[in-house]
Amino acid sequence: MRIAFDIMGGDHAPAAIIEGALSLAGDHPQDQMIFVGLPETENKAWPANVSFVPCGSVMAMDEDVRNLLSKKDSSIWIATDLVKKGEADAIISAGSTGAQMTAATLLLSRIKGCERPAIATVLPTLEGSKLMLDAGANADCSAQMLLSFAKMGAVYAEQLLGMSQPRVALLSNGSEEHKGNKLVLEAHSLLKESGLNFIGNREGRDILNGGYDVMVCDGMSGNIAIKSMEGAIMVLMRLLKQELTASLKAKLGAALVMGGLSRIKETFSQDNNSGAPLLGVKGISIVCHGNSDAKGIISSGELARKCFANDFVGKLASVL
Amino acid sequence: MRIAFDIMGGDHAPAAIIEGALSLAGDHPQDQMIFVGLPETENKAWPANVSFVPCGSVMAMDEDVRNLLSKKDSSIWIATDLVKKGEADAIISAGSTGAQMTAATLLLSRIKGCERPAIATVLPTLEGSKLMLDAGANADCSAQMLLSFAKMGAVYAEQLLGMSQPRVALLSNGSEEHKGNKLVLEAHSLLKESGLNFIGNREGRDILNGGYDVMVCDGMSGNIAIKSMEGAIMVLMRLLKQELTASLKAKLGAALVMGGLSRIKETFSQDNNSGAPLLGVKGISIVCHGNSDAKGIISSGELARKCFANDFVGKLASVL
Repeated sequence: MRIAFDIMGGDHAPAAIIEGALSLAGDHPQDQMIFVGLPETENKAWPANVSFVPCGSVMAMDEDVRNLLSKKDSSIWIATDLVKKGEADAIISAGSTGAQMTAATLLLSRIKGCERPAIATVLPTLEGSKLMLDAGANADCSAQMLLSFAKMGAVYAEQLLGMSQPRVALLSNGSEEHKGNKLVLEAHSLLKESGLNFIGNREGRDILNGGYDVMVCDGMSGNIAIKSMEGAIMVLMRLLKQELTASLKAKLGAALVMGGLSRIKETFSQDNNSGAPLLGVKGISIVCHGNSDAKGIISSGELARKCFANDFVGKLASVL
Repeated sequence: MRIAFDIMGGDHAPAAIIEGALSLAGDHPQDQMIFVGLPETENKAWPANVSFVPCGSVMAMDEDVRNLLSKKDSSIWIATDLVKKGEADAIISAGSTGAQMTAATLLLSRIKGCERPAIATVLPTLEGSKLMLDAGANADCSAQMLLSFAKMGAVYAEQLLGMSQPRVALLSNGSEEHKGNKLVLEAHSLLKESGLNFIGNREGRDILNGGYDVMVCDGMSGNIAIKSMEGAIMVLMRLLKQELTASLKAKLGAALVMGGLSRIKETFSQDNNSGAPLLGVKGISIVCHGNSDAKGIISSGELARKCFANDFVGKLASVL
C-alpha cells in the first residue's frame, strides 16, 4: 500500500508527522510512504520505501478554506491529488480539517448518495470506544445528511470497530422523541424509517457514558459537544493538579493515588484515537487531530491500512 | 415581596421546594410565600407568612409542553397566573422548563423587542461565575434572537452579577470570525454592530476557562454544551472514585487528598447556581434546575428578591 503524508499539517508538523511516518515505514517495509512537504524538509537519509514530493505552500491551521482554490501547490492539495491520480492509496493529514475535506471533496469527489462528507470521531466512553459523527466537518446540515451520517457511521462501526448491528443514537436536548430542534425532529423521523438499529435521542451527558454505538449529530453540535467535554476534563485535571500539590499532606496522598490518576488520564488521551477517515469521498483520507504526535500518526497509518485492506470505501458506497 | 412557589415541580418536589421556601419565609418575615400545590400537600402548621393555593394537576418533568393549554389547573400555570394577576411579584419553579417558559410567555407576555424568552445559566469557571444563554429554552433561533440574548445577558451580568462592561462572546466551532454555521456567522455580524462589548467567537473548550462574561448561543447548542460538560465531569468523578477505592494504598492516598477533591466537587456543584430568571418576559419567573434541593430553592428565592429590588425586568425592557 502507498500512503501520502501531508507532513506540513498539524501543531507539531513536520517533526511529529515525519517521526510517525518513518516508524510506519520501518514497520511495513512492503508499503510505500510518500512525504509531501516544503523542499527544505526533505532528508536524503530517509529509507528506501519513503519518497518525497515537494509542495510550494501550506494551508495554515485556521486559514479560510476558500484560499485552497488559489493554493493548488499546497501540501494538502498535492497529497490528496496523489490519491486522485492513483499514485497513492490513502492520504493522511493533521492540518486544517476544512482544507483536507475541501481537497478530498473536489479531487476525490463524493460517493453517490452522500451529500457532504463527514468526520467520525472515536470517543472513549465508560462502555468502551464509541463513534460520533459528524464531528465538525459540516456546520450546517440537513436531516437527509444526518441520515447519511448514520448509515456511514454504522458501516464504520461494523467494519473498523468490529461491532455488529451498531446502536445508532441521535444527539438532542432531551431523550424524548418530541425533543429537539427542527433538524433533529426531522432526522428522528428519517432514522426511525431507515432500517438502521436506531435507539432514539440521547443527551450531551450520555456521550461518555455509552449505551449507544454511533452518535449522530450535525457538525456544529458535534464540535461543541466534543470541545466542551475536552474543556471540562482539562479544567478538572488542572484543578486536580492544583489541589494535589497544594500542601505536603496532599502531595503525599497524590503520590499514593498517582497510578490511578494516570490510568484516568490515559483513558481520555487523544493519542488513543488520533485519526478518522473522512466518510463519503471516493478515497481514503485520514483526518488527524491537529495536535497529533508521532503515536497519533502511527495509529492513523494503521487505520489507513485497515480501511484499504477492508475496501472500506467500497462498502460505504454500497450502503449509500 | 410576595413569591409564588410551584411546590409540585422538580425531582425532589414537593419536600425540597417546601423546605427551601419555609427557610426563606423564616429569613424574611416581611415577605409572603405563596405555595401552589395539590391539596394533600398543604400543612396547616406553616408559619403566618406562608399561604396555600391548591392546584388540580401537575405538568410532568418531560411532558409535552403543548399539554399545558389543557392543564390550566396545573401548579405552574396557577403560580404564574398569580404574578399576572398582581397577587405575587415572582414565581419560582424547579419543574418542566418548557412548561414554565410557555406559561410565562402566554400569561406574562414578552417584553417588547424580545422575540422569545431565554434562560441564562451561571457557570462556574476558572475565572469565576460567567453567564451562558440561551441555556436551553429555544431549540431553534434566529440571529436576531441571539442578539437579543446578548443584550439581555449583558443586563443580567451588570445588574445581578455586578460586572461592568461585560465581555460578550459567541459560541462557535472556532474562534476565527469566518468559523460557524449560518446562524453564528449572521449573529457575529449583528453583534459586531451592536454597541455591546463583543469579543468574538469562543469554542466549547473555552466555556469553563473564562475569558468572557456572557456566552451567547442558541438553546440547542447551549443545552448540548452544558450537558456534555456535566457528563464529562460526572464520568471523571466516577472514575476518580473507582481509582481512589481500588486498593488499600489508593484509599490511604485518597484520605489525604479528600479535602482538595471536596473543594473541586463544590466548585462544580449545581447548588451554587440553581436558579436563573427567565429573560424577556414581563415578570420575574425563576427557573430552577430540576434536581434542585432546598439550598437551590433558597438561593433562587434570594435571586428573585434581588431581581425585584433592582427592577430587573424594567431594566431589561429599557435595553430591548
